[in-house]
Amino acid sequence: MLLTAFQSVRNHSIALCANLETEDYVVQPTLDASPAKWHLAHITWFWETFVLVPYMAGYQVFHDDFSYVFNSYYETVGKRVLRTQRGNLSRPTVAEIYRYRTYVDEHMARFLATDPTDADLRDLIILGLNHEQQHQELLVTDIKYTLGHNPLLPSLGIPIIEYPANPVSAPITLPEGIYEIGYRGGMPGDAIPFHFDNELGVHKVYLAETTLAGQLITNGEYLEFMAAGGYRHFGHWLADGWAWVNANAVQAPLYWHNVDGQWHYYTFGGLVPVDPAAPVSHVSQYEADAFARWRGTRLPTEFEWEAAAHLAPLNWGQRWEWTNSAYLPYPGFVTAGGAVGEYNGKFMSNQLVLRGGSVATPAGHSRPTYRNFFQPDKQWQFTGIRLIQA
Amino acid sequence: MLLTAFQSVRNHSIALCANLETEDYVVQPTLDASPAKWHLAHITWFWETFVLVPYMAGYQVFHDDFSYVFNSYYETVGKRVLRTQRGNLSRPTVAEIYRYRTYVDEHMARFLATDPTDADLRDLIILGLNHEQQHQELLVTDIKYTLGHNPLLPSLGIPIIEYPANPVSAPITLPEGIYEIGYRGGMPGDAIPFHFDNELGVHKVYLAETTLAGQLITNGEYLEFMAAGGYRHFGHWLADGWAWVNANAVQAPLYWHNVDGQWHYYTFGGLVPVDPAAPVSHVSQYEADAFARWRGTRLPTEFEWEAAAHLAPLNWGQRWEWTNSAYLPYPGFVTAGGAVGEYNGKFMSNQLVLRGGSVATPAGHSRPTYRNFFQPDKQWQFTGIRLIQA
Amino acid sequence: MLLTAFQSVRNHSIALCANLETEDYVVQPTLDASPAKWHLAHITWFWETFVLVPYMAGYQVFHDDFSYVFNSYYETVGKRVLRTQRGNLSRPTVAEIYRYRTYVDEHMARFLATDPTDADLRDLIILGLNHEQQHQELLVTDIKYTLGHNPLLPSLGIPIIEYPANPVSAPITLPEGIYEIGYRGGMPGDAIPFHFDNELGVHKVYLAETTLAGQLITNGEYLEFMAAGGYRHFGHWLADGWAWVNANAVQAPLYWHNVDGQWHYYTFGGLVPVDPAAPVSHVSQYEADAFARWRGTRLPTEFEWEAAAHLAPLNWGQRWEWTNSAYLPYPGFVTAGGAVGEYNGKFMSNQLVLRGGSVATPAGHSRPTYRNFFQPDKQWQFTGIRLIQA
Amino acid sequence: MLLTAFQSVRNHSIALCANLETEDYVVQPTLDASPAKWHLAHITWFWETFVLVPYMAGYQVFHDDFSYVFNSYYETVGKRVLRTQRGNLSRPTVAEIYRYRTYVDEHMARFLATDPTDADLRDLIILGLNHEQQHQELLVTDIKYTLGHNPLLPSLGIPIIEYPANPVSAPITLPEGIYEIGYRGGMPGDAIPFHFDNELGVHKVYLAETTLAGQLITNGEYLEFMAAGGYRHFGHWLADGWAWVNANAVQAPLYWHNVDGQWHYYTFGGLVPVDPAAPVSHVSQYEADAFARWRGTRLPTEFEWEAAAHLAPLNWGQRWEWTNSAYLPYPGFVTAGGAVGEYNGKFMSNQLVLRGGSVATPAGHSRPTYRNFFQPDKQWQFTGIRLIQA
Ligand SMILES: [Fe+3]
Ligand SMILES: [Fe+3]
Ligand SMILES: [Fe+3]
Ligand SMILES: [Fe+3]
Repeated sequence: MLLTAFQSVRNHSIALCANLETEDYVVQPTLDASPAKWHLAHITWFWETFVLVPYMAGYQVFHDDFSYVFNSYYETVGKRVLRTQRGNLSRPTVAEIYRYRTYVDEHMARFLATDPTDADLRDLIILGLNHEQQHQELLVTDIKYTLGHNPLLPSLGIPIIEYPANPVSAPITLPEGIYEIGYRGGMPGDAIPFHFDNELGVHKVYLAETTLAGQLITNGEYLEFMAAGGYRHFGHWLADGWAWVNANAVQAPLYWHNVDGQWHYYTFGGLVPVDPAAPVSHVSQYEADAFARWRGTRLPTEFEWEAAAHLAPLNWGQRWEWTNSAYLPYPGFVTAGGAVGEYNGKFMSNQLVLRGGSVATPAGHSRPTYRNFFQPDKQWQFTGIRLIQA
Repeated sequence: MLLTAFQSVRNHSIALCANLETEDYVVQPTLDASPAKWHLAHITWFWETFVLVPYMAGYQVFHDDFSYVFNSYYETVGKRVLRTQRGNLSRPTVAEIYRYRTYVDEHMARFLATDPTDADLRDLIILGLNHEQQHQELLVTDIKYTLGHNPLLPSLGIPIIEYPANPVSAPITLPEGIYEIGYRGGMPGDAIPFHFDNELGVHKVYLAETTLAGQLITNGEYLEFMAAGGYRHFGHWLADGWAWVNANAVQAPLYWHNVDGQWHYYTFGGLVPVDPAAPVSHVSQYEADAFARWRGTRLPTEFEWEAAAHLAPLNWGQRWEWTNSAYLPYPGFVTAGGAVGEYNGKFMSNQLVLRGGSVATPAGHSRPTYRNFFQPDKQWQFTGIRLIQA
Repeated sequence: MLLTAFQSVRNHSIALCANLETEDYVVQPTLDASPAKWHLAHITWFWETFVLVPYMAGYQVFHDDFSYVFNSYYETVGKRVLRTQRGNLSRPTVAEIYRYRTYVDEHMARFLATDPTDADLRDLIILGLNHEQQHQELLVTDIKYTLGHNPLLPSLGIPIIEYPANPVSAPITLPEGIYEIGYRGGMPGDAIPFHFDNELGVHKVYLAETTLAGQLITNGEYLEFMAAGGYRHFGHWLADGWAWVNANAVQAPLYWHNVDGQWHYYTFGGLVPVDPAAPVSHVSQYEADAFARWRGTRLPTEFEWEAAAHLAPLNWGQRWEWTNSAYLPYPGFVTAGGAVGEYNGKFMSNQLVLRGGSVATPAGHSRPTYRNFFQPDKQWQFTGIRLIQA
Repeated sequence: MLLTAFQSVRNHSIALCANLETEDYVVQPTLDASPAKWHLAHITWFWETFVLVPYMAGYQVFHDDFSYVFNSYYETVGKRVLRTQRGNLSRPTVAEIYRYRTYVDEHMARFLATDPTDADLRDLIILGLNHEQQHQELLVTDIKYTLGHNPLLPSLGIPIIEYPANPVSAPITLPEGIYEIGYRGGMPGDAIPFHFDNELGVHKVYLAETTLAGQLITNGEYLEFMAAGGYRHFGHWLADGWAWVNANAVQAPLYWHNVDGQWHYYTFGGLVPVDPAAPVSHVSQYEADAFARWRGTRLPTEFEWEAAAHLAPLNWGQRWEWTNSAYLPYPGFVTAGGAVGEYNGKFMSNQLVLRGGSVATPAGHSRPTYRNFFQPDKQWQFTGIRLIQA
């Protein structure tokens, strides 16, 4: 069972990279994104470091220096490579990283075939699967960043539909009351139930009556905001957002280009005209917040979102939906010990929660209690806007 | 009535500066702090711009260029002087700024003597009084920054007791339940009831049972954290906080100096040994948060703090108390129109709420619903730590 | 004799500051300029540190910490205050610095009255006089920078004629041959002959026949360059200069403002229209070089300049004249020992030589062998352009 | 004849890259170095842009966008890619760039087979050969930078002997007199005589009697400087150099690592112990200058170097030898028109001249009049030290 899940997740990482050129794996045009080869090696390193080394008798690490090179933010496991340097590493080569994957996969297969029954180990493996899925989403968004900032705007075959139809859905009205927030166990049909540490600590919140929009904001609606001078009137913006707009001369979502008066965006298929019916993507929280103010309303809180998603089908999954909730610990949140314990808690500073999931999120990875988080100026994820009904 | 209040507040601004040398009014050693002469001119500019110009018939502005020079963050009122340049302005001189104050004060006295009855105007005047009080606190902390970073560590007579006795008080236990948060009107005995826009929107929150410490953390307790290697173990810190500690080589609160193995701090009376019984001050939210983790507990949320302050005497007022609540709008928050409407709402990004008040806060300025806010790395205010009982 | 010279030089420093407001002494709007109070204290510190402390029996320093605060670049004499912090110091006050001056002046007067005959000491005193004169020029240019960047553009009474008539003078043709370069002793009439270490090492250079212009480039000629798009055509510029123009959006010399289509410049008398007949000032070496290329010629080398100045009256003294010579040691240059030995030699990197003197240079301070030096982007001195005849 | 030379030079570029992994072509760990694939494409672009497009009838460019992507500093030929972005380009791929080379090489072969006789064209082709050779040296040094900053310190087969034996040679004494400097025509035996524009303008200089060392400073001698605290005593350093040492915590030449108390350096063969007999390499001009001062002497000027190299065999060619001459135009220097005219002249700002050539310089590329130039802090070339005899 775990072996099947393991192999399925591992294969998906490779499938995403099927059409990359070797060079596409290497560069890092922004600190937010990591090179594809780093992602592939890092998720392999996770299995080697947290499963094979401590649990598989006689396991020999593939290369002594890889722990140093492919660690990310786990301060407890040796000295990190500075994130700024990831894009400067020509070695190990892509081929060597694939050999590393094969080596680790073979050992993992042999190890999982023994059907280990230790519960902690099982939890760790499930964490590893979800960790790899998180990096799968980043693989997609980071490769898009690299190609979308190349002057040749190359196209790439990748199994993602970036601008899907915007599903029709009714607004959801939350009655006033007390709601329970947080992970309460798997849903019926979950193959392998899972949650991250930051979803724990079920707790009550009081919510006033609110109605969430049934649909995401479309490109067409966003174009109206742009046409109305949305980027030029400071009154719509938070002070930090206004500074960001001006410092970066922002005039549109990321990847948008005005070609002879017509807005286009870069997709994996190249530059194409903006589809007014599709949900807007690649907006920062500053943009989402400004758009909401221009409309005379606001973004939902993460609690409203979660309560609504439990109440009725929100049709989420196209875009990570910016909320107006800061990423903070739930009451009773406890950081787990050890390196794995660093997982989420220490990032609870100056980030905002996003809910839902995107076209780049692996199937089955997200759930109504899932808490994604980024700084408010980030645009490189498939982020979108759902409003509270004014 | 308003005239008396006006003159009392205006006089306090001057009283704070009684012992400054002319040079002390001028410099700006950090962008967080503004020069004293800028504060004095800016609060005068507020009265001229928002009261005298629109409401007093025939009023002539004191100097045409002052609106440009002493505006701060009000985007709607002309082009701002960049904050970075405030410390480069030798003109207008301090004497000229005092003439400006006198000119405006005389006009205000004449104007208020007419007992204007317009309600909007009255609200504006009360806002102006509170605005001036906010800048009075900044005057104190910004002058301290200037003198505390001068190699001569000069002393200055100023009517502030920086390290008062830490009042003894019992812990406060909040029963589980729904609480109302937000400004519901003045307290009995309030001379002139007032609130800022960010306190509005009374709303319910559900709180689980919690106990807030009755006393602030003392210097002695903080020294234990330092002695236990608190600044050297990343496990206590948020990722951003750990980066801040390392980038700035932080080893103690602001103004602390280790002299021959003994910790001292700079006060307006010069460098003195740390008093272990007094409440710790000049800590960032990163430090407050790390201290709490080291103690195995956490900071209160702003809602817990407000509920507790309504329930029983919290003995607040020595230190602005860091909470673990991001500064976000209350449900239903609406930004008022016009320049005054920019007052608070647009700063709701990457700031944390502080509650209470400090030894530098003018008497009567704060209240249990007051929401102060700063970025988590700021240390130059009189900020302290109150914990949730572990 | 030395006493008279000492008092005369010291009085001139004060005379330059006669009309400053206290605040004008304090700020530092650019790292290139120092606050006036720093200059006044620093030149006093020189006398105290290099003359009174080592040579006057029983001398007590005025303040123990001043050596730390007012040292500049002399690495051998204790730890420097970082240059970036000079503008943040409200203390010591201006009044205290004047008391420091008086204290040191009285001791110097008493000391010089003893007619000390030691030759090294005499050299040191003469060096001190010239050092103070150098800072007198900087006092003028640095105060101009402060006032010229204040939005009120205040005027100030100061005994400087910034835009004098451009003296008519014939071109000077140097015959081909070998010339001696460097200081060979005082000129007839020199009251107190002096040279800096960087003028020493008389040596021969071969010069081809060249003709130097008799006059400095005027504002009118410079306006032609501007009108011809001089700042917009990269072909006139060195790569570094072109980068500087673009990074700083340079469109005119420093202090120039286009008011309703008419070029003005800030002077100590306020903003006035550009005088086309006066020599252009406040140009960087990049601008001087670009102007020369646009004219199809070049700037002189420092050797051509010195040879010409010995050959015939060059009418120098209005502007420091940019040369195309890097500031490098003469053959045989030796750095003197001790703190005074650091005087000039160690700055011989990425600076260009300027020859002549300016309207801000104290009378008698410069001479034909004098080597001034600045980085090529500097504009805040009274710098001008003399060309080689095309 | 030209065809043979062309093919020989072109083949050498490829030969240098024979053992690179695809990934090694892509990254750019410092702005000073460019990715290998950029070098290969840029030198191909030179032939296409300056020879094939203007001179070969009917030539079709390989790819419309390559001119934009692979231009370097030629402002006259379209908009440049910012240098900072070269390391972010995964496309065009290495394979595509090799196809580009093949395409251009085939057209060049066909074109040169027609024996074009136009003199300007011939000069342009010879310039192109020398341009490609310059980039061949950069290919070597830039690849070394990439591999030498990779935590795996990989080795690479490349036909360069980095630390050759230091040839024994007698000191050369220049008699006092007038010397002619500059390119006066090819040497007997030159296959294809050539010079850059910056060598033109033969002119006379007067030189005093001087003796240049016969040998380069060795690693052993440099280790003595280090052992004597050379990097810790500011007295040896120019002010800019001292700031550079401190800002970068420099303790040794580039690529040196202290492993358990023993100095090693990175070479293309990996990390090896420092050879005390080999000439020191990878030192900045600041280090060369400080070393000379510590020895009580100085670096030669570029004129002394050139005169000595004409007088007797200097045994140059192991290291680019730092001089103490700023890179300035010779008298009468004229920038040629057009893009090719930008070649050298506009960099004559804040760079120092290096003479000789290094182990990475293609055979026959340099000559006694050759003027190389870099900023004084650069270490990534094979730079060394020759002193004036004290
Ligand atoms: Fe990870
Ligand atoms: Fe204000
Ligand atoms: Fe000085
Ligand atoms: Fe090139």
